[in-house]
This record gives sequence, structure tokens and C-alpha cells, in this order.
Amino acid sequence: MENQTIDIGALENLIQALKQLPGIGEKTATRLSHHIIRQPEMYAQTLAHSILEAREKLQTCAVCCNFTETPICSICSHPQRKSDLVCVVETPADLAAFEKARHFTGKYHVLHGSISPLDGVHENKLKIKELQDRIKKDQVQEVILATNPTVEGDTTALYIARLIKTNGLKVSRIAYGIPVGSEIEYLDGATLGKALQNRVAL
Amino acid sequence: MENQTIDIGALENLIQALKQLPGIGEKTATRLSHHIIRQPEMYAQTLAHSILEAREKLQTCAVCCNFTETPICSICSHPQRKSDLVCVVETPADLAAFEKARHFTGKYHVLHGSISPLDGVHENKLKIKELQDRIKKDQVQEVILATNPTVEGDTTALYIARLIKTNGLKVSRIAYGIPVGSEIEYLDGATLGKALQNRVAL
Repeated sequence: MENQTIDIGALENLIQALKQLPGIGEKTATRLSHHIIRQPEMYAQTLAHSILEAREKLQTCAVCCNFTETPICSICSHPQRKSDLVCVVETPADLAAFEKARHFTGKYHVLHGSISPLDGVHENKLKIKELQDRIKKDQVQEVILATNPTVEGDTTALYIARLIKTNGLKVSRIAYGIPVGSEIEYLDGATLGKALQNRVAL
Repeated sequence: MENQTIDIGALENLIQALKQLPGIGEKTATRLSHHIIRQPEMYAQTLAHSILEAREKLQTCAVCCNFTETPICSICSHPQRKSDLVCVVETPADLAAFEKARHFTGKYHVLHGSISPLDGVHENKLKIKELQDRIKKDQVQEVILATNPTVEGDTTALYIARLIKTNGLKVSRIAYGIPVGSEIEYLDGATLGKALQNRVAL
């Protein structure tokens, strides 16, 4: 009675391919596969095409390492954005969040991760060398470290700060504090502590 | 300063395509896209190929409606499985779970869902007509309704039972009770109630 379902090789292949995505386990991969098979054929074609197209067309910007379809991305090639002010973020998604907020007029640098030895991510896997080269080449005046407020993000910020700090270069970390619109009652002690510590004179 | 990231059309396309998968929102789709772009090109090709292959090759079995690469699946064409005993399940994943348990020697019928008017799934979207045809054609003696123990699953089971019940046909529902290996202390009241109600004489 065993090996009854061995003939569904194509389904198994799809499940295995989907399982390699981060955060997708066997059950989710199975559910997604069934969904793809049930959809009109057009959807499978669009999805497959988008995957190939994205993988083929997208490259990392030669300056900031963000994903782009051109050798240099539109932010780095924008004439009105300051080249001497660089905001360092962990991922393209973080960059997008800052862009959406529309408060930053400088350029970015995407590290593509944070230092996390337990996950096998060491400093040489991140785009730190590219940042150093860029600081020299573009005569950067200030580097804002906007990595996540996590142990890994903090470690990465500290590591980079020590590495790049010279007399001429200002290095800063984005502020910790209470998020706008939050309720103090529900905020954690660490955040409130930082908010008190970094209080601003009125 | 707006529309700075418009040049990454291929990325946006991939995110939009992934977002259409069930349970995948904007953030997850973005994370998955970045992962796909960062992997070696081979992975994107394998994934795209598996999607197309699965969608192309897989069809529903003419008898039980499970996914298969042949017109009739290996379970339905197996000579030693009883054709007159049919276990009705909601999804191919449920079928796989029963097969893994290796306790069932009959054949299956996959409904591809459960009646859920709020989600727009009405009885005519499920493979119920196919089940009725099959009961007549294969002279089925017993139908075991193994839909999920949820409101939708129970409704579906009840609906099918009323529809197919005739004098000659036995219709049953899989048993509710305490799961093997569970701790009574942590089980919900509804399950314990059912377990008491359906107690078996020793």
C-alpha cells in the first residue's frame, strides 16, 4: 500500500522548490503548490516569468548596492540628492521604508543583512567594503547608521562605526525612543529607558 | 524626490505575483523576492520550471479528483484497493495524511474545499457531483466523510450525507474524540464533550 503517491513527481518538485524560500515549511509549500495548480494557467506563467525576469534583470547598484535594473540606481544617479550624506540600512525593504517617509535627502547604502555569527553571517558577507570605498571616493561627510534596533543591528552599527570613524567623518546612529502614535502604557522598558536617556531639551 | 524606486519594475512585478498566493502579504512577498534575487540563478530557474511543470502536468484524477500526472491516479487504479469504500476528504493534503497513517484500504474522493459561503465557496464549487456519479457507477457500499472538524467541514459532511443517503448506502463520519498522545488537562471542552458522548464499551 506504500508509495501510492509517488507518481505526483511534478507536485513534489514544486513543493521542494518552494520549501527553500525563507519561512516556508513543508505545509505552507504544499498549500501554495495546490493553489498554483488550481489557478488558471496564466497565473503560473506570470509567476514563473516574474521570477526569471527579476533574477535576470535585477542587479545591485554599483554605488549603494540596492537592487536596480540599471548599473547605477535612480537614487544614486539623482542630481539633487546629496552624495556626502549616506544612510546605511540592512535591506532594500528598509531603504524603501525611509523613501516612503520622505525625510531623507541624501543617498543610501544597503548592507544586505546584519552581522549574525549564529546565522553564519559574518562582516565579510555584508557590503561594508563597498561602503568604505565609497566614503573615500565620494568624500562622504556623514554616515547615518540605520540598521535595525536589534542585537544584530546594534552590533553591525557599532562594528561599522569603529571601522570607518576618522577625524573628518561624522558617524551617527538613528535615534531610539518612543514611536510616534504609540501608547506609553504598552511600550517595553528598554524603549522607555532609551527615550528617557535620549531626552531632548525643549 | 518621489518615484525614486520606479525603475525596479521587475522586482515590483515579482512581488505582485507572489502576493496573490494565499497567506502571502506585501511584506512576505518582498522578503521572498529579495531572497530569490540573491540566490544563484539556478534556483530561480528551478523554481520557475517547477511552477510551469506542475501546472502543466498535474490534472485531477477522473475518479477521485486528487492531483495526478496520469488520467487516473495510482490509488484509484490500484487493483487491491476497495472501490466500494470511499473516504471523502477536503484536500489532497488530507488524503496524504490518511495515506501516511496506512489504515485505510479503500479509495478517496477529494472535494477541493469545504462549503463556506462567507469565502464564496458554495456546494457547486466542490467535487460533490463527481462523488454522486461515482457512488452510482462504482456501486459504493460505504462513504466515510472525513472533512475537517470545523464548522465548514461539519456543514459539508452534513450536506453530503443528506444528499447521498439512500437505503443501500452506509454513510459515516470519522470519530471525534481525544487525539492519541494528547493530555486531557489541555484539551478543549468541545473535544472532551464529544469524547464522553462517543464513548466505546470495553
